[in-house]
Amino acid sequence: MKKVNVFESNSFDAKSMKRLLVHDSPYFKVLNFNFKAGQELPVHSHDIEGEVSLTVLEGEGEFLGKDGISIPARTGDVLICPISEPHGVKAKSDLRILVTIAPPI
Amino acid sequence: MKKVNVFESNSFDAKSMKRLLVHDSPYFKVLNFNFKAGQELPVHSHDIEGEVSLTVLEGEGEFLGKDGISIPARTGDVLICPISEPHGVKAKSDLRILVTIAPPI
Repeated sequence: MKKVNVFESNSFDAKSMKRLLVHDSPYFKVLNFNFKAGQELPVHSHDIEGEVSLTVLEGEGEFLGKDGISIPARTGDVLICPISEPHGVKAKSDLRILVTIAPPI
Repeated sequence: MKKVNVFESNSFDAKSMKRLLVHDSPYFKVLNFNFKAGQELPVHSHDIEGEVSLTVLEGEGEFLGKDGISIPARTGDVLICPISEPHGVKAKSDLRILVTIAPPI
């Protein structure tokens, strides 16, 4: 049993998205990405099996997809997506996202 | 790509914890458990491989473990635990938890 408070353990960085590895195991990888307003994780994909969940812990922004798709993102939103499908994030306000990848990459 | 807002899609129930299945796939199962203040998910375990993450989206309470262990739980806390290790939750305030189980059970 291991506990991490991602609000305390991760900060924001004026230069770029701030990444915290919360957990990595044979079962899943858990990360926290913090974005200052305006920062972006560009659309990308990995040509492998598996899925990723992106959970908005705090803030507002957009989930990005292929062909310029944009889906509003706000606290309580959970986005699920194959890792092989293009996905990204853009922050409108300061934004805290929890990322879970299974199986881990 | 699929999005669910668990704050909107799940409610609270005065009688017991309210459960929402967010996603189920060969990779992971994602659930949202909402507890009214005082409600509890009793300590339990499953004798199988895998891990569970419990993320506090909102509220305050305790993570419970074996031998009466209690760990404070509040917004931004991520608890990671083998599924085979006893774990539970008790709410002090109304409490929203996101649960991810990999591999799914």
